Amino acid sequence: MLDTPNSSTLAHTATSDSPDFSVPIVLGMIGLGTVGTGVYKILSRRTDLVFHQIAVRSLKKERDLPGLDSERLTDNAKSIVSDPAIQVVIEVMGGVDEARPLVIEAFKNGKHVITANKELIAKHGAELFDLAKARNVRLMFEGAVAAGIPIIMPLKLSLAANNILEIAGILNGTTNYMLTQMAEENWNYEEALLQAQKKGFAEADPTSDVGGHDAAYKISILASIAFKKRIDMKHVYCKGITSVTATDIQLAESLGYTIKLIGLCRQAEAGQLDIRVHPVLVEHDHPLASIKNENNAIWIKGDAVGDVMFYGKGAGEMPTASAVCADLLAVTTDLHKGNDPIPSMEIETTGFANILPVTETKNKYFVRLHTADHPGVIGLIGTACGEFGVSLESIVQHGIHEEDGTASIVFITHELAEKQMLKALDKIKADPAIQKLGCVLRIL
Amino acid sequence: MLDTPNSSTLAHTATSDSPDFSVPIVLGMIGLGTVGTGVYKILSRRTDLVFHQIAVRSLKKERDLPGLDSERLTDNAKSIVSDPAIQVVIEVMGGVDEARPLVIEAFKNGKHVITANKELIAKHGAELFDLAKARNVRLMFEGAVAAGIPIIMPLKLSLAANNILEIAGILNGTTNYMLTQMAEENWNYEEALLQAQKKGFAEADPTSDVGGHDAAYKISILASIAFKKRIDMKHVYCKGITSVTATDIQLAESLGYTIKLIGLCRQAEAGQLDIRVHPVLVEHDHPLASIKNENNAIWIKGDAVGDVMFYGKGAGEMPTASAVCADLLAVTTDLHKGNDPIPSMEIETTGFANILPVTETKNKYFVRLHTADHPGVIGLIGTACGEFGVSLESIVQHGIHEEDGTASIVFITHELAEKQMLKALDKIKADPAIQKLGCVLRIL
Repeated sequence: MLDTPNSSTLAHTATSDSPDFSVPIVLGMIGLGTVGTGVYKILSRRTDLVFHQIAVRSLKKERDLPGLDSERLTDNAKSIVSDPAIQVVIEVMGGVDEARPLVIEAFKNGKHVITANKELIAKHGAELFDLAKARNVRLMFEGAVAAGIPIIMPLKLSLAANNILEIAGILNGTTNYMLTQMAEENWNYEEALLQAQKKGFAEADPTSDVGGHDAAYKISILASIAFKKRIDMKHVYCKGITSVTATDIQLAESLGYTIKLIGLCRQAEAGQLDIRVHPVLVEHDHPLASIKNENNAIWIKGDAVGDVMFYGKGAGEMPTASAVCADLLAVTTDLHKGNDPIPSMEIETTGFANILPVTETKNKYFVRLHTADHPGVIGLIGTACGEFGVSLESIVQHGIHEEDGTASIVFITHELAEKQMLKALDKIKADPAIQKLGCVLRIL
Repeated sequence: MLDTPNSSTLAHTATSDSPDFSVPIVLGMIGLGTVGTGVYKILSRRTDLVFHQIAVRSLKKERDLPGLDSERLTDNAKSIVSDPAIQVVIEVMGGVDEARPLVIEAFKNGKHVITANKELIAKHGAELFDLAKARNVRLMFEGAVAAGIPIIMPLKLSLAANNILEIAGILNGTTNYMLTQMAEENWNYEEALLQAQKKGFAEADPTSDVGGHDAAYKISILASIAFKKRIDMKHVYCKGITSVTATDIQLAESLGYTIKLIGLCRQAEAGQLDIRVHPVLVEHDHPLASIKNENNAIWIKGDAVGDVMFYGKGAGEMPTASAVCADLLAVTTDLHKGNDPIPSMEIETTGFANILPVTETKNKYFVRLHTADHPGVIGLIGTACGEFGVSLESIVQHGIHEEDGTASIVFITHELAEKQMLKALDKIKADPAIQKLGCVLRIL
C-alpha cells in the first residue's frame, strides 16, 4: 500500500478526460492514533489508494501495522499539507489549534480534506466550507458525528426532499453507557464514570463527554445541515450528566421514563432554532429509550418521511475509520470520474441561526423535592404551581429518607415555558416545608 | 409548477459547460396513485423541476391536487418515455409487465429513470442496470426498499469501506403490524389481517405481504448491493406468516423472544450466499425486537462499522415520495453540474450469487409439539434429538390443552444444520406419543 507515487499518478487530476481507476489516488494522513490506525487497516486492503506520507507525534513509538514503511512516517504535519504529490489529506489528529491551520493550508494547496474532527467542524465549519468552496476542493466529515453510523450523507442527500422538523440524538457513547449502567446496576455517578474509564469509553479527563460538549458539537453540525444555518456554539445551551443521580434514574424508570443525554434541535416559532444538549426523560416506548450502553442513535422527524432513526456504535477505531474511508471513497470516485465536488457534502448555510434562549423553550418537567413529611406539602406545591400556570400531570410521594426524615416528592408537569417553571420553583423552594430541590429535568 | 419547457430547458444537457440552476429540469411521471400523488405534493414546492407530462390510468378520475393542469395528464404512458422534452422519468405505476418495457424505452431514448418498484428491480435489475450503463443514464430506486428510510445510498456509499457480513431486515410493514398486534392484543392471524386491511396497510389480496414475497424482493435488492451479486429470485427461500399462531407468539414471548418476519442475507461458507425470508424468533434485547407495528428496520453488520440499524416507516404516500424525490434531487444536481452518472447508485455485480439451499443453512430452532401427557415424552424427544446430533438448549411442557387432553411441549435447540433438524423431527413425529407437530421456527 505504501508506494512512491509515479509520474502518471501525479499527472492524474480531476480534469482528466479518461477516468482510469487503475491509477491510484495519493493520500496523506495527519495522525496515526486510534482512528488513523483504523483507516490504515481498512486501506491496507486496497491498491487503488496509496499513502504517500503519514504524520505522527513521535517517530519513536512502536507501531504494529503490517506493511507500514517507517520511511513514510514524518513528525512534520506541515509537510503533508504542502507536498505536491498528495491529492487528499486525512486529518485524524483531533483538536482545533493545530488542526485548523493545517486544513486551511491543505485547501490553499488545492488538496481535498477528510476529517473526523467534530470540534473543528462545529467551531470553524463556516470558515472551512467557504474556503473549500472557493478553492473547488472537498471537505468531508462523516466521521465527525456518530462515527460509522451513516448520518451526514443521509441527512443531506437521502432526506433532501424533506423539511426537517426535529432532530434528537444520543450522540455521546460514554455518557449513554454511564446512564445505562446507573439504571440497570443502580450504580452512582462516580462508579459509572470509573467503569467507563476502565472500559476505555471515557478519557482520563472526561469533561467533554460528561459535560455535554462533545454532544453539543455534534448536534450543532447536524443542525447546520438540517436547518441550513451557521450555529454559534456560544449560544448552544449545554448541560451534562454530572448532577444526574441513580435515585432520579430509578424514580424516572418507575414513572415510565429513561434518562438520556440528548442533543436536540428543532424549528421554533418565528424562525428561531431551539438547539440544546441536556439530560431528558424519554418515554419507554420512544425509540431512543431502547438505545443502551455505548451506542448512539439519531432520531429525525421530516415532514415527508415522518420519523426515522439511525443506530450503531458512535465511537471507536474501526467504526470511525469506516466513516472516514467512506468519505475517501466518495472523493476518489469523483476524482477518477472528473466530477465536480459533491455539492451535497458542503454545508450551505444562509447566515447564523437565531437561537432560542433555553429560558424561552417549552418543556414538560420532572421535579424531585425533599420535603418535611407532613400532609400539607402536596397542597403547597399544587398551589405554587397553579399560581404560575404550571399544570401538573402527576405528583407522587416516594417514601421517607431515613438519614434525615425528609420525604421525596416527585411531580411531572404538562408542557409550559421554562421561565414559568423557574418562577414556580422559586416559590416552592422558598417555603420552609421544602428542605431541598433534588432535581429538575426536562422531558422529551 | 406545470410549465411548458422552453428552448433553453431543452438545450440544457448533462454536458453543459456552465451549470445553471435556474434552468428547470423537465420531468415525466408514470402513475399518479399513492406514491405519485406524494411526489407531486413535494415537487409542487419547487420551481427548479417542472412536470411536462404525467401518465394516469384514467383521465376521468377526480384529483384534488392544487395547481394540477389537466392538460398535462395523459393516459398514454408511452408518450412519456418517447417525449424528447422529458429528461427524467419517474416510474411509480408499480407492477412489472407494463413498467419494464416503458423503462427500457426510456433508457433507449436517453432518459434517466427513478422508480420505487421493488418487484421490477428485484426481477429485472440486472438487465435494467446494464442498459442504463450502456446508455450512460441513471436508474435510481431508493424508494424500492423501506420507502423513505435511507438505505440504498447509505449501504452503497456510507458503508462502502466495509465488507458487509450480514443484513437482517423487517422489510414489510403489513406483516410487522399483524405480528405486533397478535403479540400485544393476543389476536389470531385472521383478526390481525382484517385489522391491517381496515387500516389500509394490507391490500384486498394480501398474498405478496403475508406470503413474504414483498420482503423477498427487498432483501434481494439489498443483497445485490451488499454482496455485489445478481440474485435469482427463484432461489430465494420465502415463507410468510400465514401459519404463525398467537399461541406460538405468546410461547416465544415467555421464553424471551419476539416473532418477526425477517429478510436475511449473509455470507455463507465457500462463497455461497445465505438469503431467505421467513418468520424468526428474535431475542428481546436485539434491536430488531423493538420494531413495532407498521415500522420497518434494517440491521446491518459490517466488518468495520459493526452493527448499524436504520428505522422508520416502510411504506405510505409521503415516506415513499421522500425517497423518490431524494433520488430525483441527486440526479438533477448532477445534471446541472454536468457530472457523470453517480456510479455508486448502479448495482455493480459480478455474476449470479451461488445461493445456499435452505436445507443446508444452520439455525437454532423453536419447536412446539402436541403430545400425550405422559412422563416419557420429554425423554423420547431428547433421545430422538440426540440420535441426530440435535443439542437442546431448553425443553418446557406448557400445560394441557383442554379440548383434546394433549400437552404442549416447546423446545429450543442449539445451532445445527437444517437437514439434521428435519431428520430428528421425522423421528419425533413418527412416535405414537406425539399427536401433532405444532410449529417449527428458526431463531435469528
